[in-house]
Amino acid sequence: MDPNASGLTKRLAEAGQSHLLRFWKELSPEEQAELTLDLQGMDFQEINGFFKKAMETSSSKQEKMDSRMEPVPREVLGSVTRDRESLKDWEVAGLHCISQSNVAVLLLAGGQGTRLGVSYPKGMYDVGLPSHKTLFQIQGERILKLQQLAEQKHKNKCCIPWYIMTSGRTMESTKDYFSRHDYFGLDKNNIIFFQQGMLPAMDYQGKIILENKGKVSMAPDGNGGLYRALGNQGIMDDMERRGIENVHVYCVDNILVKVADPSFIGFCVKKGADCGAKVVEKTNPTEAVGVVCKVDGRYQVVEYSEITLATAEKRSADGRLMFNAGNVANHFFRFSFLRDIVQKYEPNLQHHVAQKKIPYVNAEGQLIKPDKPNGIKMEKFVFDIFQFAKTFVVYEVLREDEFSPLKNADSQDAKDTPTTARHALMSLHHRWVLNAGAHFIDENGRHVPAIPRDGAAGSVKDDGNRNLKDGTDLPIKCEISPLVSYGGEGLEELVKGREFHPTLMIDGNGVHELVKNGV
Amino acid sequence: MDPNASGLTKRLAEAGQSHLLRFWKELSPEEQAELTLDLQGMDFQEINGFFKKAMETSSSKQEKMDSRMEPVPREVLGSVTRDRESLKDWEVAGLHCISQSNVAVLLLAGGQGTRLGVSYPKGMYDVGLPSHKTLFQIQGERILKLQQLAEQKHKNKCCIPWYIMTSGRTMESTKDYFSRHDYFGLDKNNIIFFQQGMLPAMDYQGKIILENKGKVSMAPDGNGGLYRALGNQGIMDDMERRGIENVHVYCVDNILVKVADPSFIGFCVKKGADCGAKVVEKTNPTEAVGVVCKVDGRYQVVEYSEITLATAEKRSADGRLMFNAGNVANHFFRFSFLRDIVQKYEPNLQHHVAQKKIPYVNAEGQLIKPDKPNGIKMEKFVFDIFQFAKTFVVYEVLREDEFSPLKNADSQDAKDTPTTARHALMSLHHRWVLNAGAHFIDENGRHVPAIPRDGAAGSVKDDGNRNLKDGTDLPIKCEISPLVSYGGEGLEELVKGREFHPTLMIDGNGVHELVKNGV
Repeated sequence: MDPNASGLTKRLAEAGQSHLLRFWKELSPEEQAELTLDLQGMDFQEINGFFKKAMETSSSKQEKMDSRMEPVPREVLGSVTRDRESLKDWEVAGLHCISQSNVAVLLLAGGQGTRLGVSYPKGMYDVGLPSHKTLFQIQGERILKLQQLAEQKHKNKCCIPWYIMTSGRTMESTKDYFSRHDYFGLDKNNIIFFQQGMLPAMDYQGKIILENKGKVSMAPDGNGGLYRALGNQGIMDDMERRGIENVHVYCVDNILVKVADPSFIGFCVKKGADCGAKVVEKTNPTEAVGVVCKVDGRYQVVEYSEITLATAEKRSADGRLMFNAGNVANHFFRFSFLRDIVQKYEPNLQHHVAQKKIPYVNAEGQLIKPDKPNGIKMEKFVFDIFQFAKTFVVYEVLREDEFSPLKNADSQDAKDTPTTARHALMSLHHRWVLNAGAHFIDENGRHVPAIPRDGAAGSVKDDGNRNLKDGTDLPIKCEISPLVSYGGEGLEELVKGREFHPTLMIDGNGVHELVKNGV
Repeated sequence: MDPNASGLTKRLAEAGQSHLLRFWKELSPEEQAELTLDLQGMDFQEINGFFKKAMETSSSKQEKMDSRMEPVPREVLGSVTRDRESLKDWEVAGLHCISQSNVAVLLLAGGQGTRLGVSYPKGMYDVGLPSHKTLFQIQGERILKLQQLAEQKHKNKCCIPWYIMTSGRTMESTKDYFSRHDYFGLDKNNIIFFQQGMLPAMDYQGKIILENKGKVSMAPDGNGGLYRALGNQGIMDDMERRGIENVHVYCVDNILVKVADPSFIGFCVKKGADCGAKVVEKTNPTEAVGVVCKVDGRYQVVEYSEITLATAEKRSADGRLMFNAGNVANHFFRFSFLRDIVQKYEPNLQHHVAQKKIPYVNAEGQLIKPDKPNGIKMEKFVFDIFQFAKTFVVYEVLREDEFSPLKNADSQDAKDTPTTARHALMSLHHRWVLNAGAHFIDENGRHVPAIPRDGAAGSVKDDGNRNLKDGTDLPIKCEISPLVSYGGEGLEELVKGREFHPTLMIDGNGVHELVKNGV
C-alpha cells in the first residue's frame, strides 16, 4: 500500500497532483487503502487533458449564441397536434419495429434523489399513487405491456431490451431493487445494468479537490457519460448481438414517459433519422428549458442561460415562440449512428464546465464550505452529439400527456414535485377513462364535470369571479395499471357507459373502486 | 318595530317567507331591530321571481353545450402575437381616446379576501413587493401614469374616471383606505365608489335561509350585479355627464392588469365593437378556465364545467386548442351599449344557480352546518350580456405579461397566491429592464443570464439532466413604479448599458438598489 512503491507518487507528481497525498500520514490504514484504490483507478494525464480542453472551450464561448441560431424547420418536425393524420401510420411503423425485437430502451438513471431528500436512486421513489408503484415499476410495466401489444398485433414473440445506466453510487441498490421486485415481470436477461463514469472535481488551477483528508471529491461525468460507458462496458456489442436497430433514450424522472413510444420511433424510422429529439412546446419566453435548434447549421440544444431575452421572446408569424422546441431528455438513435458516436465522435468532444461551490480541505487540513464557486465539475450531455446526425428530426408532443418530471421534494415554492407528478399521472388516466366513455360521480351522487374542481359545490357556474388556474383544482383520483393500458387503448370495453366513484383503479384485479384513503 | 304594525308580517306571508320571523320572540330588541331593517329592504316578490326563473333555467340547461359551440373566428380576433404589425396603431388610437377623456375604467372590487385569509377588501392586499404597494395602489398609479402619457402626447389635459364597485361588506373600508392614501395622487372627484347588490340564500323549495335566529344568509349577487348597480346608483348618468364613450371593466385581483390598456381600447374602437373580451390562450385542455366562444351564433363564456373533455381537447389545423380564448374578466364596453344593457337587456336575464353548503338554523333553532349542498345562491355574471353585442371582438394577450390573479393564500398546493403574483410582477419588470439594455450582476460579480435560476452556481451548463420547469427558478428582484413606466416605455434613458445588483427599484427616487431584505 506504499504509494511510492506502487508508482502512484510518481504518477501524481508527473500530473501535478501530488497534493492528493498531502495528508497521507494522518490517515488510518483503512483510509490509506481506500484512497489508494480510488487514485489507482484514475488516469491523471487524461483528467488533466479534459480540464485543459474544457476550460478553453468554456472561456471561448462566453458570447451569446443568438445571431447563430435558427429554429427547427417545419419539414423535420413531426407534431402530435399538427400532423394528426400521420399519427396512426407512425404508430403502426413503430409497433412493427418493436415486434421485430429491433428496438431497445436506454434509461438514464444515474441520479440519486438528493433534491428529493432521499438517498436512494430516484427510480425507486414512490410519489404516492394509489398503487404506490415506483417510477421503475411504472416504466417496467409499460415495457411489458408494449411487448404484449406488439406480439398481439404481429403474432410474433418479441422483446424490448432495457439498458439501465446507473452510477457508482446507485448501481448496487438499483440491481437489488429490481431483483427483489422480480424485474416487474420482465425477463431478467433483457435488463442490462451498466455504470456511468465519475470524474474528480477540480479547482480553477486544475488541481483535483480533496473533500476530506483521505477522499477525492468525485461526481458523475454528466448524462453524456452515457456514450463512453456504452463503449467501455460492452453495451454496443450486446445491442449488436441482439440485432438492435433503434434505441430510445430517456430519463428516469419523467412519470409520464412513453417508454419505447411506437409513434416517436415510427416517425423517426419513417423519416430515415439518425437521431431524433422529443420536445414539448415552450410557451413562455422565460421558462427555464433548453431548446432544440440549429446553430451554424447544425442541431443542438441551446440552454436558456445561453440566449438573450430578445431571442427568447422572438416569435414566428403564427404567434408561437420561434425557439419553442423544449428539450425533455427523450431521444431516438439509430443503432448505426449510436455506434459511430461511441467509436468516433464523442471521444473528441470536450466536457462542459460547471462552476460549483465544492467543499474541500485546505492546505492546513481544515474543511471549508465555500460561499462562492471555487471549482468545477466536468460533464458531457446526451445531446452534445446531435451535431453529428446527418438526418435529425424533432417530434413535438403534449406536455400534459407525456412530461412531468420529478425533481424536488414537496414544498411551497417547488415545481416538479411528488405531488405534481402524481397529479399529472392521475389527470392523464382520468382523461383516458372519460374518453373511453365513462363518468365519475361525486359523494352526493352528481356527475363530476370533465374538468373537475375540488369541493362538492358542483354548481353550474359557481363563481363568476373565477379566472384561470384556480388554486383548488385537483385531479379525480384514478389510476390505470400500465399492464392494462399503455397509452389509453383497450379501455372502452372495460368502462364504456359506466359510472365510478373515485378512487378508481384499473389493474390486474379488474375495474374497482377503492375506499377513501389519504392519497 | 312591531312587524305586524309595519306590514312586514303580511308581506312575508304573501311571499311564503313567514318562517323568517319564526324566532322573533327569542330575539333581543337590538336583534329585532336589525332583522327588521334587513327585511324591510327586501322585495320578496322579486326575490321569489328570481328564484323561480333561475331554477327553471338551471334545470333546462343540464345538457352539454358542445354541439352548439363554435370557436372565435379569426376576423374578430386581435392578437398581440399574431397581429404585431397593428399593435402600434391600436395603441395610438386608444391613447387618443384617453386624451379626449372619453375612457373610463370600472373596477370589480366587491370581493373580500376570504380565500386569502384576510377580512379586508382584496385590493388592500400587500403581496410583498419591495415597495409593499397594494393592488389598489398599483392600479391607481397606472391610471395616473396613463393620463400623463396621453397628456404628453396630445398636449391636452385629460382624466380617466375610476368607477369602483364594492359590496356592502367592503364599501366603508375601501373608501377609507383610498382617503387615507390620498387617492394615490388622483383627483378624488374622479374616483366614484358604488355598491353591488346582495341577495338572500335560499333552500331548494325557495325559502330564504336564516343563518342564525335573527339574521338572513346574504351573498353578493355576482359580478354581473354590476349592471343593476350601475343603473340604480346613478353611475350611467355620471358617465354620460362626463362624456364617457368607452369603458374598461376589470377585476381587482390581477396584479398585472393594464388598466385602460390603450392597445385593447384602440383595437375595440377601430373594430367598431360594442363589446370586447381580453383573453389569454388556454393551452391545456383541462385547465379550469371559461372560454369565449359562440353558442348558437352568439358570443358567450362557456365554463369549463359545461363542456365534455372531447370538446375541450379539440384542436384546429394549426395545432392550437379550438376553444382557447381563456376568459380573464377583462372587458371593453362602448358606453351606448352599456346603457342599453343596463336599461333594456340585463333586467331580463335570469340568475345562475350556485348550489352551496349553507349553514342554517333549523325549525328547532339549532345551527346546522350541512355536509352536502342544501341551498342556492343566485348570481349574474359580467359576461352574461356578451350575447347582446352586435359587434363583439376578442383580444388575445400574453399571460406572462398581463394576467396573474391573486386568489389563495400561500400554501404547498395553491396556485394564484401572493408569491405567484409577486413573482409575476417582478419577472415582467425584469424583462422590461433587460429589453431596455441593462444587465444584472450576481453577488459574485457575474452576469445573471436573461432567464435566471436561483443559486449562485451560474455555470454555462450546470445540470445536463435538467429538464423543464426547475423548482428553483426565482425572478430577479426588480420593481418599477407605475409612475415611472406604464408598460415598459421610457426605461432606456434610465438604464441602457448599466449593470445592477438586485433588488433594483425604479421609482420617484430614481434608479437605485436596495440592500438585501427578506422579500
